[in-house]
Amino acid sequence: MNLLVQHVDVSNRGALLHKSDARSIGVIDGDRIRIVNPANGKSESVVIDTTPSLIEEGHIGVYSLTFGSTELENGQEAEVFESIPPASIKTIKKKMDGGKLSKDEINEVVSDIVLENISLTELTAFVIASYIHGLDMDEVEYLTRAMVDTGDSLEFSTKPVVDKHSIGGVPGNKITLIIVPILAAAGLKVPKTSSRAITGAGGTADLMEVLAPVEFSAAQVQEMTEKAGAVIVWGGATNVAPADDRIINVEYPLKIDARGQMIASVIAKKKAVGADIVVIDIPVGKEAKVATLQEARKLAREFIELGERLELEVECAITFGDLPVGRTIGPNLEVAEALRVLEGSKSPGSLVQKSLAISGIALEMAGKAARGEGEALAKEILESGQALAKMKEIIAIQGGNAEIKAEDIQPGVYSAEVPAPADGYVIDIKNRGLITIARLAGAPNDKGAGIRLHAKRGSQLRKGESIMTIYADNEQKLKNALEEGRRLMPVLVEGMLIDRLPSDAVRLNRMD
Amino acid sequence: MNLLVQHVDVSNRGALLHKSDARSIGVIDGDRIRIVNPANGKSESVVIDTTPSLIEEGHIGVYSLTFGSTELENGQEAEVFESIPPASIKTIKKKMDGGKLSKDEINEVVSDIVLENISLTELTAFVIASYIHGLDMDEVEYLTRAMVDTGDSLEFSTKPVVDKHSIGGVPGNKITLIIVPILAAAGLKVPKTSSRAITGAGGTADLMEVLAPVEFSAAQVQEMTEKAGAVIVWGGATNVAPADDRIINVEYPLKIDARGQMIASVIAKKKAVGADIVVIDIPVGKEAKVATLQEARKLAREFIELGERLELEVECAITFGDLPVGRTIGPNLEVAEALRVLEGSKSPGSLVQKSLAISGIALEMAGKAARGEGEALAKEILESGQALAKMKEIIAIQGGNAEIKAEDIQPGVYSAEVPAPADGYVIDIKNRGLITIARLAGAPNDKGAGIRLHAKRGSQLRKGESIMTIYADNEQKLKNALEEGRRLMPVLVEGMLIDRLPSDAVRLNRMD
Repeated sequence: MNLLVQHVDVSNRGALLHKSDARSIGVIDGDRIRIVNPANGKSESVVIDTTPSLIEEGHIGVYSLTFGSTELENGQEAEVFESIPPASIKTIKKKMDGGKLSKDEINEVVSDIVLENISLTELTAFVIASYIHGLDMDEVEYLTRAMVDTGDSLEFSTKPVVDKHSIGGVPGNKITLIIVPILAAAGLKVPKTSSRAITGAGGTADLMEVLAPVEFSAAQVQEMTEKAGAVIVWGGATNVAPADDRIINVEYPLKIDARGQMIASVIAKKKAVGADIVVIDIPVGKEAKVATLQEARKLAREFIELGERLELEVECAITFGDLPVGRTIGPNLEVAEALRVLEGSKSPGSLVQKSLAISGIALEMAGKAARGEGEALAKEILESGQALAKMKEIIAIQGGNAEIKAEDIQPGVYSAEVPAPADGYVIDIKNRGLITIARLAGAPNDKGAGIRLHAKRGSQLRKGESIMTIYADNEQKLKNALEEGRRLMPVLVEGMLIDRLPSDAVRLNRMD
Repeated sequence: MNLLVQHVDVSNRGALLHKSDARSIGVIDGDRIRIVNPANGKSESVVIDTTPSLIEEGHIGVYSLTFGSTELENGQEAEVFESIPPASIKTIKKKMDGGKLSKDEINEVVSDIVLENISLTELTAFVIASYIHGLDMDEVEYLTRAMVDTGDSLEFSTKPVVDKHSIGGVPGNKITLIIVPILAAAGLKVPKTSSRAITGAGGTADLMEVLAPVEFSAAQVQEMTEKAGAVIVWGGATNVAPADDRIINVEYPLKIDARGQMIASVIAKKKAVGADIVVIDIPVGKEAKVATLQEARKLAREFIELGERLELEVECAITFGDLPVGRTIGPNLEVAEALRVLEGSKSPGSLVQKSLAISGIALEMAGKAARGEGEALAKEILESGQALAKMKEIIAIQGGNAEIKAEDIQPGVYSAEVPAPADGYVIDIKNRGLITIARLAGAPNDKGAGIRLHAKRGSQLRKGESIMTIYADNEQKLKNALEEGRRLMPVLVEGMLIDRLPSDAVRLNRMD
């Protein structure tokens, strides 16, 4: 059937048909058609959407990627036929039925994910089936290699190339801003790609953005790393392991983090940036992604095995994930705190200690320090000011202001205190509550939004003393965050009422 | 955040945000926002899509259902907040992890499916998890009841109300056009909703459309059935068990037909139209949905058990599904063949026999005939012309021409013969090949398109004699179908070359 082309500026592959035309062709939503440009013979097979009204009968809405690749023009006629599904659909079905996938099968599925040859429904089926039946280490290896092969890769002439990764779940984890310049100052290459926060209050990319632009292509990342020794950029702007981004988009609304896919995701990104030495930070805590030490050790062994299969040397640091790292949460606050450490501050202890410990492991793996002496070397590099100098170089090469100082970076102009509800000692701090408050205040997009904690676990507080200051760039958001701060009370003070019900049930129980 | 409303005429719930605004709100594709109309306080929580360009920054594209329910107006400001996911997401996760779902949990999920409270990704996760882990009979019962409760229902003052269903996979299965008037002529109510073909060459609704309009609301179906005793309409136009339609949309691209969901789907639709007696036709054959007799018996037991739980009396007819029913495939051809039987023709035998057998079961169940005497009563009703008279009444009440005769209904004007490639006997007929050819010829949308088979299994043929005639409304489609007919050769003649490879391998093997 011939249809008049109308460009629809949706940034993916596909086409939109009027329901009647779809019916005439014999296709429904989720089916595939082949669109042929008769002027040049170029064609593409795409999954269709249908509409009763957005597109007129006799027309076809062609999405941007397909519009570009077929070189169609608005108002031109295109030939449209029903088209058959790719072989990947059979592979997805095989995984749904519990089968083990071969290397070729996984390559084909990953390639179809990247090329958008499979629809959202089909991709979801693959992700859910892999979650339920699991992927064994062979399948994880194939998946990792396929993710690397279907995206851009960096290759450095000199080795070692070092990378680090934190699997997340702990607020205030600004250690990358300290570790990367320490390692680069020791002469190592560190092409660090990082993420923006999705559910958190600030990913490393959100933090670095306070200091310099973070969106670069893979080629630019390579060039800048060759020159400055390191960069800290947003991975989402590169085309490194793009299949992974699509898989994560499906996992995200269901809050699943399928083990095999997560390991493949981390290692694929490290492999693709050309790293040969990788330190992985696995925080363990009640509210972190990994709850027990046993689970953390198992995960570490899997990271190490997958690393070996891909010729990456991997070590894992199992870290304390029950409390925030440092005293601040939110972009400006965290960046100022990290810069202050680079400028010579010895506190907060938790931040300095964690940064040096992980830097030390990497320095030892890279042969810069003998076993057991890495942390001391890291400390020397930090205290001598070499790490600060390197950080300025990194900021400069990414196009930021290298002369910036910690004191120049201020939190939001609106602020409010959350007072202790009773006299007592701080007995617990709830990470998720802190993240919620920081997000309500505007983090990570409002750079000034966030929290400064005044109390640590064990601190003594009097009723009315400030537990934390909440900052915001916007008055309404501050109010929302403060309200939620009072309601959630993420810092528990011994002796305070933990909960209050509408009835007198709690008090009555206490009198028993 | 406040955004300017812009109606986007996509016929579902949801909203489209510019990527920057989504980022400011802290949401990404697949997340939820709450849209509030400040003028009246009405609000809705919807899953968002994002775009870099279709919607300007500061605007929000609101899809039709949401636009209507919030009573927003173009150009008005709406308040937009991040919103939390519904409890159904936890239920879906529970099924992914192999849990058994309670009645309340399934009710909530089904209700959220119908209200579009859950996204396509989430719905797919539910369907795939139910496919992999299965649903036990309790869960199937809850699902069935929830499907009925979330849609329109019919209720008839007089009983019995009879229905039939064929689970499909056999081409040319036009028996409904004969069974429904026989049962209605016996005084039974038959509010028959049927489907259009998705992968086949003509569903019952596609066939009936040759004779009369088939799109009616549930209330109209009830009213017409009360008057004429029966109707044959398209179920998709009613709002009967709408959750089922959405589930099937997800199963369709993956070609899965999860057992539990399929049984629930069939029984829910029968229950919702008010049936209390149901006959289910389960064709068994190599290329049918059910391949073995054992499998068919198991499926029949499940249908019967679920029927009991919902107070429906169910009997199953296990039928021969290896060959087409009758000699024709495609709307006009099939309708003419069925009308001819109603007008008194005794052939094709396979069509007459199957229609009478299934009618007989229903007549016995409804107490119109003693056990073992239903088929004879059906034959009497058919041969006396009462069934034809009732069919005219059905056609008339649906707004068609009741005076139509079989001879008035002609196949497409373009036709071609497929000649036997060799002398011999017909040893096999491949249903899927026939369906593919009929679809290429234009069925089910081109009503004249289809196939008339001249040879049955066991027929003797001479080389060059016609195996079948292909009809089409369009010359190009006829050519495509004919080409494929010669290539697929779905009618196998003994002695003919079954396959031919590029090399001489086949012939060499034969010489060994």
